[in-house]
Amino acid sequence: MSKPKVFEKPIGFRDYLPGAVKKLRAIEHRILRCMEGWGYEQIMTPTMEFYDTVGAASSTSDAKLFKLLNNRGTTMVLRSEMTAPIARVVSSLLKEEPVPLRLSYHANVFRSIEEEAGREAEFFQTGVELVGDASAEADAEVVALAIASLKAAGVNRFKIAIGHVGFLNGILEDALHGRVEDQAALKEMLLSRNYVGYRDLLKRLNLAPEVTQELADLLRLRGGEEICERALRVSSNETARHAIEHLCQIWAVLKAYGVCEHVLMDLTMIGDFSYYTGMTFEGYAADLGFPVVSGGRYDNLLAGFAHPAPATGFALKTTRILELLDQEQAEQASQLLIAYTEAGRAEALQHALALRQEGKLVVTSKVDEEQLDMLAQSTHFNGKSYEQVIVYPQKGANA
Amino acid sequence: MSKPKVFEKPIGFRDYLPGAVKKLRAIEHRILRCMEGWGYEQIMTPTMEFYDTVGAASSTSDAKLFKLLNNRGTTMVLRSEMTAPIARVVSSLLKEEPVPLRLSYHANVFRSIEEEAGREAEFFQTGVELVGDASAEADAEVVALAIASLKAAGVNRFKIAIGHVGFLNGILEDALHGRVEDQAALKEMLLSRNYVGYRDLLKRLNLAPEVTQELADLLRLRGGEEICERALRVSSNETARHAIEHLCQIWAVLKAYGVCEHVLMDLTMIGDFSYYTGMTFEGYAADLGFPVVSGGRYDNLLAGFAHPAPATGFALKTTRILELLDQEQAEQASQLLIAYTEAGRAEALQHALALRQEGKLVVTSKVDEEQLDMLAQSTHFNGKSYEQVIVYPQKGANA
Repeated sequence: MSKPKVFEKPIGFRDYLPGAVKKLRAIEHRILRCMEGWGYEQIMTPTMEFYDTVGAASSTSDAKLFKLLNNRGTTMVLRSEMTAPIARVVSSLLKEEPVPLRLSYHANVFRSIEEEAGREAEFFQTGVELVGDASAEADAEVVALAIASLKAAGVNRFKIAIGHVGFLNGILEDALHGRVEDQAALKEMLLSRNYVGYRDLLKRLNLAPEVTQELADLLRLRGGEEICERALRVSSNETARHAIEHLCQIWAVLKAYGVCEHVLMDLTMIGDFSYYTGMTFEGYAADLGFPVVSGGRYDNLLAGFAHPAPATGFALKTTRILELLDQEQAEQASQLLIAYTEAGRAEALQHALALRQEGKLVVTSKVDEEQLDMLAQSTHFNGKSYEQVIVYPQKGANA
Repeated sequence: MSKPKVFEKPIGFRDYLPGAVKKLRAIEHRILRCMEGWGYEQIMTPTMEFYDTVGAASSTSDAKLFKLLNNRGTTMVLRSEMTAPIARVVSSLLKEEPVPLRLSYHANVFRSIEEEAGREAEFFQTGVELVGDASAEADAEVVALAIASLKAAGVNRFKIAIGHVGFLNGILEDALHGRVEDQAALKEMLLSRNYVGYRDLLKRLNLAPEVTQELADLLRLRGGEEICERALRVSSNETARHAIEHLCQIWAVLKAYGVCEHVLMDLTMIGDFSYYTGMTFEGYAADLGFPVVSGGRYDNLLAGFAHPAPATGFALKTTRILELLDQEQAEQASQLLIAYTEAGRAEALQHALALRQEGKLVVTSKVDEEQLDMLAQSTHFNGKSYEQVIVYPQKGANA
């Protein structure tokens, strides 16, 4: 083990320099403003939570949680996502509030990582939770809000894929009754989008040919509105049918929002959190290989906090949206420079205050006579260039 | 050791509900906007740093650092303040940038606490660092910006006390030559503002009567511009004289800013961070017993990161400013409700989108016929009250 060098930081953590911060905060601001417009109010929770409460509920694998002990020997975790902490708040401080609750957040979350290239141990999420409404209308609202949020952030080319964990659960339980491990193995293939592996595994499961065919056909259940009807024909399993009917209702509401151009049905999709119980969705930007948003319904999570309530929501991967938009040129902030010698100081500093009051960005600098003369004819100083330079005392103003 | 209850959070950590978040973020936004106006650009650093680099440099006592081990056995800390992390960035990513560098930040920082009432283990700081300028002009700029920032946040009644570590160091070294422990004990009394304890300790030190008197007189070196002159008469120690002259120059610049009504000299003040090397200051709000801002010059910190440079800055205690302003009534966000039955859905959701586009805050809700009739005559729904309620389909619009 070597000592870290003085300027090193832990693997997976990053610094954001002014240009990046400007963009990141603009994205944050625009998304939160959009969510506010839909009636969502922001809450904040601690960076650290008890492992036994929020850590365990967060559905992040144990190996990926940053853990530490407090001085009483209790294990704490750095939050790995915001849904479980918000469930804790909803079940305690907000439990008497009328539902539905519409809550939003912007937060950094933490995942312990191996030293994989490009993985981040701390990153930002901006999201919402809609608590206390089990309807398809509520699911559609969060999907439509995810779409509006991406647009507000400046992401224009993207697709949202929606699925339902009930559909796969129903179909697989019918086809592989009680074979929990085989069901899990097939789901794992779908979760990692390993469709070749899925088909290979299917062959090895020794199912009746028509069942194998039915499960293989699942991979084709991706597309638009037509998928609803096709899916209803695949299975007579009741859980699966309910799932499809709920999805069709969501689709109808999304149509009313006028956002279906951004949506596709993908019945092979299962969310990456084990607490999802219904509709799940993921959004992919055109130029990016990984999701920029994921969400879904989690009707059982709040019961774990002794406050049963249906809930649905999503988290935008704000850090990834930044990467996506980072290729665009940053808007250059234009600063003014007011340079002065001691004789011009009071006038200079007062002028600076007045300009700042008007919203201008003003740097002040005390200089010597020679520099002052040079600055009367230049907008460059100390390696930086300024929109305008004003010097005090103002020579020749009366000349 | 008992298991935490499901809705508990670790001691010293808090949740911010929507009303508090609204205020906190408004304070954050106004302060950062003010700093931007003075040419300061925001940077962000990781929540976690290596103990051997930033942890050690942070000058937070070891017992107060949150520590954890990464999977290679290296000790990491949650940042306890932002000056040391920014020093790391200035010394690495920004080391080729022209100076002076003007950087700002808003960040949560962490201090491990005993179970004292009212202490926070995670709180917010908003601050600046001005790197590469050793002048009194630079020190005055950060003091004036601290004043402007407090005003921008909405704090109007406050005083900034400025001092200089060189003055006390010089005087004490003269009076107690080489008696490092006695010097430290006296400083500790001043730091905790225990003036009775300071006088008692003085008596026990067995100094010449005139030296005891001189050190006792230090306590009277608090006030306005007149303190400069009086302080020059106290000591002929060179370090102390340089300190006073620098402070007098700072005062002259603060006069030019027109902010001296908020400033007092307090030569008994020493900053609470061991890395301070020159001017230090603290700001107290009229209604609060603890500082809302503290800052100072730290000309040696960057050398520890292999990039020697003078620097000065401050951190506002944003969480305390929130407490201060929390007594004021929160601005109630006025939301509109658009309620609809299935027949009115498309029109309702499109109207909501249009109103949000105009900046309105709009909640939508699918209701049944009976609720729709009631809502045509009420602005209350589900325990909440709305600025306006619009129902779809709009009955009798043509009647």
